Amino acid sequence: MARATVRDVAAETGLSIATVSRVLNGQANVAEHTRELVLRAVERLGAQAPRPRSRTRPGAVHVRCPYLLTDYFGLIVTSVAEELSKHGRRVVLDAGTSAQKASVLPSLGSGDVAGAVLVLPPEPAEQLVRLRDRKFPFVVVDPRTELPRDVAAVSAAHFAGARKLVAHLVELGHRRIGVLGGPRDWLASDSRAAGYAAALADVGVLPSPELLRHVDEPTEENGYLAARDVLELRERPTALVAFNDKMAVGALRAARERGLSVPGDVSIAGFDDLDLSRATTPELTTVRQPVREMGRLAVTLLLRLLDRYEVDALHVELATELVVRGSTGPAR
Amino acid sequence: MARATVRDVAAETGLSIATVSRVLNGQANVAEHTRELVLRAVERLGAQAPRPRSRTRPGAVHVRCPYLLTDYFGLIVTSVAEELSKHGRRVVLDAGTSAQKASVLPSLGSGDVAGAVLVLPPEPAEQLVRLRDRKFPFVVVDPRTELPRDVAAVSAAHFAGARKLVAHLVELGHRRIGVLGGPRDWLASDSRAAGYAAALADVGVLPSPELLRHVDEPTEENGYLAARDVLELRERPTALVAFNDKMAVGALRAARERGLSVPGDVSIAGFDDLDLSRATTPELTTVRQPVREMGRLAVTLLLRLLDRYEVDALHVELATELVVRGSTGPAR
Repeated sequence: MARATVRDVAAETGLSIATVSRVLNGQANVAEHTRELVLRAVERLGAQAPRPRSRTRPGAVHVRCPYLLTDYFGLIVTSVAEELSKHGRRVVLDAGTSAQKASVLPSLGSGDVAGAVLVLPPEPAEQLVRLRDRKFPFVVVDPRTELPRDVAAVSAAHFAGARKLVAHLVELGHRRIGVLGGPRDWLASDSRAAGYAAALADVGVLPSPELLRHVDEPTEENGYLAARDVLELRERPTALVAFNDKMAVGALRAARERGLSVPGDVSIAGFDDLDLSRATTPELTTVRQPVREMGRLAVTLLLRLLDRYEVDALHVELATELVVRGSTGPAR
Repeated sequence: MARATVRDVAAETGLSIATVSRVLNGQANVAEHTRELVLRAVERLGAQAPRPRSRTRPGAVHVRCPYLLTDYFGLIVTSVAEELSKHGRRVVLDAGTSAQKASVLPSLGSGDVAGAVLVLPPEPAEQLVRLRDRKFPFVVVDPRTELPRDVAAVSAAHFAGARKLVAHLVELGHRRIGVLGGPRDWLASDSRAAGYAAALADVGVLPSPELLRHVDEPTEENGYLAARDVLELRERPTALVAFNDKMAVGALRAARERGLSVPGDVSIAGFDDLDLSRATTPELTTVRQPVREMGRLAVTLLLRLLDRYEVDALHVELATELVVRGSTGPAR
């Protein structure tokens, strides 16, 4: 099929070849009307867009999120993609649970991929360290395990958020609090559990193991099962904190099934602040993660690594916010 | 940084150069253990992965979804990405509302992009037709407007799904049904409205304009406002059908505020069947869209276009399924 040249488009528009190339490379430093001018010209020429001169195109960024792009993950990937395209970086997406099968880490850096953003990578820390040793620029969002200081990582303040949440329950008089924990080997589960414990310790209460349940995957169904289990204890907890909002929704269902009123008989809280948490009755008390900001900041760190600026703070933690709604109330 | 050659890796593994290339190009026709063998070898060489011989890499696919990747959109993009990577196709992502600013259509086909999947493209049909005229292979998922027969498109059976939903309400004795419609200029809004009307016509009822509200964007808040408005009518509807589950969640809130019980005083139904629709009390009656299948089928059609097979049915509609839950009941 016919392909216009950058020169054709420059002639058609009267713009410089450099400007036309910037537009075709999707670079950010172009005025909107200039972009429109070029794109309309390409259309008038009725030809395929010119092949951009590759040396003017900045390297692509591999964005890996081996999970369903919904809620938490979908919002992170969206903000990462938006931020990268603002900087004229092509986004190569690797998403969906099938992406967990074979690790792509060793093949990163092949072709035109200049860097990567890895969301909650399932690989052990060693593999990420090896990637760093190869001097390949990448940023981890929400690391699953502890990473060395010099591997760039962005995450939410799990500990502080969890602590604030349980402090709120403690203030309402709750002492016997059931924990519907996330996967055992996730850093987030561990940090949040530590936050819960800290808030209880502040009032001289030690977390009791019988009140803790871990799930393999933080789904609504697993939240339901864990909650049903812990609500069966002879000495029932007066509050439940779930690893995330989905599990909290399952907990609401378990309470409803047992004929327990929320928050009358039992308070229930989640983590994340998804749309989900405002769809329930009562609406969920939760901890808001700054998901969009995490994505944007990950890109900022990556671009600085790509530009060879030294990055001062390689591990960045973004503040979380306690959101109190109807699902938590005074302890019976 | 050092870069191993395909030859190095072949020597290290004893595999053929062709096989090593297939792995590094992320192609599907490679056994998992072979893939692992190659990737471990690359790691042992402690070098950057070899630059794949580009002629062996199939063209990339541009996936455009100018919306937040959550719920409906996130699931479609996930299945499109998973399916494409199974076929060794690199996914170039263009997502987020900022992607609506400048149309990328005219620049498609530049560089190594061989085809595209366009999710609910905001562009007028003419632009899509021009893209087809340029012989650029692409598939539209959930077209916003009517498209010529020869533009490949995948969508859900909006009309049939909406008709089934309202037939269910009619069976429960509902005749005065409020419609919280989607954006006026969306094909989906129009087809669903036609489906509602058809089901009412079956029992000799004409849809009354005063019961119809359109929104600019199908959000929870807009659903709340539209529902509040129509529930204020002196002759209140006994049921509300919302354009999607988010709007239905807003409608539940509006009914709650008015002290109306659902489904006792008013039945409420949505469309999509998101996680959201099982998080509400009562859970939402809705119409399930085969979102994952839509993504997979879009890729199948695109691959056939790329392989120059003629595609028999260019417009594909996937069946929807009525899901009856607690939010709909007999009319008062």
